[in-house]
Amino acid sequence: MPRTQTSHSQPSARGDIAGTYRQVRSLSEALVGPLSEADATLQSMEDASPAKWHLAHVTWFWETFLLRDHKAGYALYNDDWPYVFNSYYEAEGERIARFSRGMLSRPTLGEILEWRAHVDEAMQPLLGREDLRPLIELGLAHEQQHQELLLTDIKHALFQNPLGSAMWDATPPPAQKQEDGWHSHPGGIALVGHQESGFAFDNEGPAHRVLLEPFALSSRLVTNREWDEFIADGGYRNPAIWLSDGWAWVNQNGISAPSYWREGEHFTHCGWQARDAEAPVTHISYFEADAFATWAGHRLPTEFEWEAIARGQEGEAPAHDAAGGNQLDRAEPPLPVGSEGLFGDCWQFTRSAYLPYPRFEPAEGAVGEYNGKFMSGQFVLKGASCATARGHSRPSYRNFFYPHQRWQFTGVRLAKDI
Amino acid sequence: MPRTQTSHSQPSARGDIAGTYRQVRSLSEALVGPLSEADATLQSMEDASPAKWHLAHVTWFWETFLLRDHKAGYALYNDDWPYVFNSYYEAEGERIARFSRGMLSRPTLGEILEWRAHVDEAMQPLLGREDLRPLIELGLAHEQQHQELLLTDIKHALFQNPLGSAMWDATPPPAQKQEDGWHSHPGGIALVGHQESGFAFDNEGPAHRVLLEPFALSSRLVTNREWDEFIADGGYRNPAIWLSDGWAWVNQNGISAPSYWREGEHFTHCGWQARDAEAPVTHISYFEADAFATWAGHRLPTEFEWEAIARGQEGEAPAHDAAGGNQLDRAEPPLPVGSEGLFGDCWQFTRSAYLPYPRFEPAEGAVGEYNGKFMSGQFVLKGASCATARGHSRPSYRNFFYPHQRWQFTGVRLAKDI
Amino acid sequence: MPRTQTSHSQPSARGDIAGTYRQVRSLSEALVGPLSEADATLQSMEDASPAKWHLAHVTWFWETFLLRDHKAGYALYNDDWPYVFNSYYEAEGERIARFSRGMLSRPTLGEILEWRAHVDEAMQPLLGREDLRPLIELGLAHEQQHQELLLTDIKHALFQNPLGSAMWDATPPPAQKQEDGWHSHPGGIALVGHQESGFAFDNEGPAHRVLLEPFALSSRLVTNREWDEFIADGGYRNPAIWLSDGWAWVNQNGISAPSYWREGEHFTHCGWQARDAEAPVTHISYFEADAFATWAGHRLPTEFEWEAIARGQEGEAPAHDAAGGNQLDRAEPPLPVGSEGLFGDCWQFTRSAYLPYPRFEPAEGAVGEYNGKFMSGQFVLKGASCATARGHSRPSYRNFFYPHQRWQFTGVRLAKDI
Amino acid sequence: MPRTQTSHSQPSARGDIAGTYRQVRSLSEALVGPLSEADATLQSMEDASPAKWHLAHVTWFWETFLLRDHKAGYALYNDDWPYVFNSYYEAEGERIARFSRGMLSRPTLGEILEWRAHVDEAMQPLLGREDLRPLIELGLAHEQQHQELLLTDIKHALFQNPLGSAMWDATPPPAQKQEDGWHSHPGGIALVGHQESGFAFDNEGPAHRVLLEPFALSSRLVTNREWDEFIADGGYRNPAIWLSDGWAWVNQNGISAPSYWREGEHFTHCGWQARDAEAPVTHISYFEADAFATWAGHRLPTEFEWEAIARGQEGEAPAHDAAGGNQLDRAEPPLPVGSEGLFGDCWQFTRSAYLPYPRFEPAEGAVGEYNGKFMSGQFVLKGASCATARGHSRPSYRNFFYPHQRWQFTGVRLAKDI
Repeated sequence: MPRTQTSHSQPSARGDIAGTYRQVRSLSEALVGPLSEADATLQSMEDASPAKWHLAHVTWFWETFLLRDHKAGYALYNDDWPYVFNSYYEAEGERIARFSRGMLSRPTLGEILEWRAHVDEAMQPLLGREDLRPLIELGLAHEQQHQELLLTDIKHALFQNPLGSAMWDATPPPAQKQEDGWHSHPGGIALVGHQESGFAFDNEGPAHRVLLEPFALSSRLVTNREWDEFIADGGYRNPAIWLSDGWAWVNQNGISAPSYWREGEHFTHCGWQARDAEAPVTHISYFEADAFATWAGHRLPTEFEWEAIARGQEGEAPAHDAAGGNQLDRAEPPLPVGSEGLFGDCWQFTRSAYLPYPRFEPAEGAVGEYNGKFMSGQFVLKGASCATARGHSRPSYRNFFYPHQRWQFTGVRLAKDI
Repeated sequence: MPRTQTSHSQPSARGDIAGTYRQVRSLSEALVGPLSEADATLQSMEDASPAKWHLAHVTWFWETFLLRDHKAGYALYNDDWPYVFNSYYEAEGERIARFSRGMLSRPTLGEILEWRAHVDEAMQPLLGREDLRPLIELGLAHEQQHQELLLTDIKHALFQNPLGSAMWDATPPPAQKQEDGWHSHPGGIALVGHQESGFAFDNEGPAHRVLLEPFALSSRLVTNREWDEFIADGGYRNPAIWLSDGWAWVNQNGISAPSYWREGEHFTHCGWQARDAEAPVTHISYFEADAFATWAGHRLPTEFEWEAIARGQEGEAPAHDAAGGNQLDRAEPPLPVGSEGLFGDCWQFTRSAYLPYPRFEPAEGAVGEYNGKFMSGQFVLKGASCATARGHSRPSYRNFFYPHQRWQFTGVRLAKDI
Repeated sequence: MPRTQTSHSQPSARGDIAGTYRQVRSLSEALVGPLSEADATLQSMEDASPAKWHLAHVTWFWETFLLRDHKAGYALYNDDWPYVFNSYYEAEGERIARFSRGMLSRPTLGEILEWRAHVDEAMQPLLGREDLRPLIELGLAHEQQHQELLLTDIKHALFQNPLGSAMWDATPPPAQKQEDGWHSHPGGIALVGHQESGFAFDNEGPAHRVLLEPFALSSRLVTNREWDEFIADGGYRNPAIWLSDGWAWVNQNGISAPSYWREGEHFTHCGWQARDAEAPVTHISYFEADAFATWAGHRLPTEFEWEAIARGQEGEAPAHDAAGGNQLDRAEPPLPVGSEGLFGDCWQFTRSAYLPYPRFEPAEGAVGEYNGKFMSGQFVLKGASCATARGHSRPSYRNFFYPHQRWQFTGVRLAKDI
Repeated sequence: MPRTQTSHSQPSARGDIAGTYRQVRSLSEALVGPLSEADATLQSMEDASPAKWHLAHVTWFWETFLLRDHKAGYALYNDDWPYVFNSYYEAEGERIARFSRGMLSRPTLGEILEWRAHVDEAMQPLLGREDLRPLIELGLAHEQQHQELLLTDIKHALFQNPLGSAMWDATPPPAQKQEDGWHSHPGGIALVGHQESGFAFDNEGPAHRVLLEPFALSSRLVTNREWDEFIADGGYRNPAIWLSDGWAWVNQNGISAPSYWREGEHFTHCGWQARDAEAPVTHISYFEADAFATWAGHRLPTEFEWEAIARGQEGEAPAHDAAGGNQLDRAEPPLPVGSEGLFGDCWQFTRSAYLPYPRFEPAEGAVGEYNGKFMSGQFVLKGASCATARGHSRPSYRNFFYPHQRWQFTGVRLAKDI
């Protein structure tokens, strides 16, 4: 998943950075509200982390890159904690093996919340410093990314429990029916990458020109209904439509449906629910997305095609800016509902490998490890999911995952040559 | 570890079985007293189970084999729970994969304690039934075995945490210096296996005669001091003293000391503590025990040699019957202290494979799976550890583990031919 | 499989040791006669070795333990070869990883045969030395053991080829129908272990007394017909009759029949052949043998029960001493045919773990690694198979394998309590 | 590695396709000339295949896609062989597991050579058919690709032998010193992909325009001398210069030098040889190439940058067209020597993921599996190595491997932004 910002950014929240800080930090804590101490400690696979660990790791980020590096006289809250709450920053030293995060019953959730309060208090004088604004914006974006991971990770953990545990007690609303249609583009030279004022991660730049062939991008996401047709047509048993690595993945793992599916139902943060045929399909891998597109006689878009369409529609409000759009800001269960915008239901796989843009340079120091070192073997996803912070909906955002991963809210928007 | 009793047993507690039931059940709950909900949910490896799961599994045992099978009209407390709390009884149906026990953040510890109270209430009328006495005694012994596992499993789980979490806040007492000496035996025919009144597991019988050669058994356990000498002499780097499988195990796992050791210290339920040179070494594998014995110019005893000496000393009180002996009955931290009896400090590896005695027959039905199906690949251990229930100290008791396992309180008592 | 002799042995071939040497060495070479250079280089799994490697390893044994150690001035034929042809003798230094033996296309088969001739020439003056007789007898027995392994390993390798490659072009004779019956034994004290003059491996001694309960041993081996009944009765799908480790092995490996079986046929050195219903079943694991015995309402014998019956029948000629008995001496395809003796069709699993006899001491030096270091985790097999050298048929012989292994000619002879 | 051609191709050998066929087929056989039957059967890893298998697989390709599909009345030489010699064509049915190719001691090398002669004879009437020219050209290119794989696979297999086996007895010539320099490009729109007459694989098209930023490409390859400097500077121990997946690969595999290196030497088809400091470094992975470029303060080129420079230099003869250039055509040992052209020493990693060009469509039928299904997770390499057929040197050629693979002759040509 993406992770440092470009330098020239303006305040994301237009001045009231202290207020944004307060809101973001509060939301993280609200998200673990429904969880028990034990729920918050679960780690179900190496890719995922405990909810409690997310709360601590983002706090380590603030303490390390803001307080330790930029606040005179600040002493670490606990000298032993960086070892367990550093994620992958080699420049910050050795750390606990990734899959041992689930063994951290201590410190307790209460102790982590106390640490959070301590760091929040210590951060106050720094929030007004203009020289630190880029780092603070990065810290906010970082914490928001971990909010999404917290939600997808706890979903995966609760799913392991055969008793069908739910996190929220709520009834999902019916999905909106999406209209069929295609956004056409005549091809030609397009300017892509982060080019506006405002925060963006380093991997979204530098802005640069690309040459596009004429194409069209679907105005809607592939639905559960269509995926049922794909399955009924033998989609998971026909090697002709799969990438070679995808076919091996299907067979080695006995894959025959999206993740979280069982007969007529899927597992959600609200437990097992009837599957809505009109809702966008989610929790599919790149391999499945690509096979579906081939089966459908189309293809996945490139990241630049997707961005070009998104830029052409900037007059339109991103879907989850609208009332009732993004559930996450209100700490409600994330559920794709089938909007017509490009943002807010699920991340959309592109056929673009996650690689550096021309003249890309990672930042100096540990934060330079945020994005650049992951540029091999992964694919770019565009858009935003129902679990993504509202402020992350922008055309240049680049999310990235390996082609077999599917515990995020990932879906498919088709493209075609014209 | 051992698991059905022989039939002809007398009440272990001489009549007051209801009182024993109450004590055993209470102790299980007392043991989790110092644990948080998150601690009690941890599973650190496939061999180990969460503390909370142990509390639930033993309750499933009472509910299944006593209440369901023998109490008219009893309805299961929760129909979905057998799937998650059955351990390995194939006759009781499918169950959760062993290594997924650590994903059970639900039911909560509170819910399991409520279930325990419900089952205890329902059990009251059954405790007086003479026909059920063997099954009830089995249930009690079973729960006591899981108390020991609970302690060794949580020790292993807390050890994974680099922050050095402790379960109890206490200072271990200094070890008693053990006197050197040998118990000699002239050889000849000995009667072994369970032959007294009182409870025993099915694998302890039938009692039968064996032929022994003259031998001697050490009157004391190998100490940490001796193990340090073994290490200093290159014990872990000299293939000549190791079994072939043991040498492979050492090299594949980078073994160079007993489990839980670091420079001068070892990890205990009270956190990291200085290692007492006079205390018995613990947490060693069969492979290590055998290599040590070879290095020392002696050998491990057979299970029958050990039992013959234990029977010859029955006049003596088992060590942990003495005041201050067995810590477990008082829910205190288990620590080997170096007594002179054969019971109470640590389990002692024998060179006997865990195999059926002549004319052994497992019980009918699911409880027949308790012991017999594990009779391949494991070695017998005799004695009792500081974490074993006092009532389990008897000459015929057969504990068993694979030769690489060492998360139990396992140690070495040497033997020699004379 | 077993591998150093006891000291007090008499010449196995009563004086003509040079002749025996010549015969044994020739047979090894005759066995690879039907193989191409490529066949002889195949290694199909870590447990097995290339045919060519067996020819070289036994030669390394002669060169190392006889020529190098006992012939003044002998220079190694090739200084680099011990690294690749030492099997597991730690005292002889580092060696190639076991599973890399299949990468040794060089030296060629021709070069190895030249080495063999060179060593045979150099050995001549030593064959008459009385002080070396025990070592020479060990070398002969060692080479004979590798002849059996060569045959079972190449069978396994050829089996991997879906084209159904055969090593010999021959038609197996029909099996003899075995008579039902039981050999009874009244129990009591029996003397077991090597006690005669003549060669034996160190693990066959010291001879010692054991106490037996009354029992009976079947006069015949379990047949393919009976195994078909076991399968038809759901033997591979009923956990109640399996050891716990065996049931895991069945499920993890999808086991549903003996090795080398397919519909009505089995794979042999002569390629795929119709399965003879009256022939002894072979290529089954300990787990299968134990499950079958439980299913049949009987049990496996102990190694001492088996030996006691074998000793009681010593008047009888072992089956493959008879004309036409053991095929191996004539370099013909090994095939079990269903004799009534205890030797010569297949190795018979006992329920005895492979452990040291009382007062067992391995020999000094590298040859002490021959047998003793394998004494954990394995089971003893008695008898001899159709691929075993004739001279290895003796009551005290102890073969040993892990409970999951089944590429040897392994079968079942039932026992029961009486 | 690449594998169907575009349709509009002209005869590669300007008319004498029968002569080209004869030459290509002969060269395959000449390459196995120095190998024994056993050498030719070795498979050292799943990525590699036995030399004998390559000879058979390419023959299967001719028999299947030309003779079976296009020659009336042709009967397969052996109905069982497609199962073992199909590589990865799902449309052609089930096949032997990839890693079992090394178990095919049968058919023998002699039998495969007889099959080759049979197929060559049967192919004669087809070689003149204009309608089949594209398929024939594909078959030729396919066989040439397998010649390169045969060489790199046998090198890997012989390397496993600690005795240092060589394939050829020859002394490598000294490397030419390459001149430093940069080829500059002003950026702008470039036409890339196959656009000439003549054969090309399907993945080289369609030709299309791309937009380039100004850049420069080194006129020479990175040398062994420079790689020694990289190592001396701690290149393999500094996580800051590695991709995250690369750093994990280094640590999990204990990587500290290119493949085939040991102190001062490297393993070649001529055995262990002194390493020439001026020769291009080879046998490095993408991860290593990328880390080196970062360490050097530069970067890897994109596939389009590389191609643009190659197209700008088309007046120059590709290096290995020169006398003494490409060794493979003369069945001599392949060795990089350090030429100044872009082709002929080693494949050069680009930072471009191996993905479809705009409007790419795989061919219909089984040959459509040749290239397209591998388009995930791999990187494009440009150029040609010392083991590549001369006719494969063209600007649009796209080779591809996973970022950890390094058994091909892979090297580094640096690029930089200007």
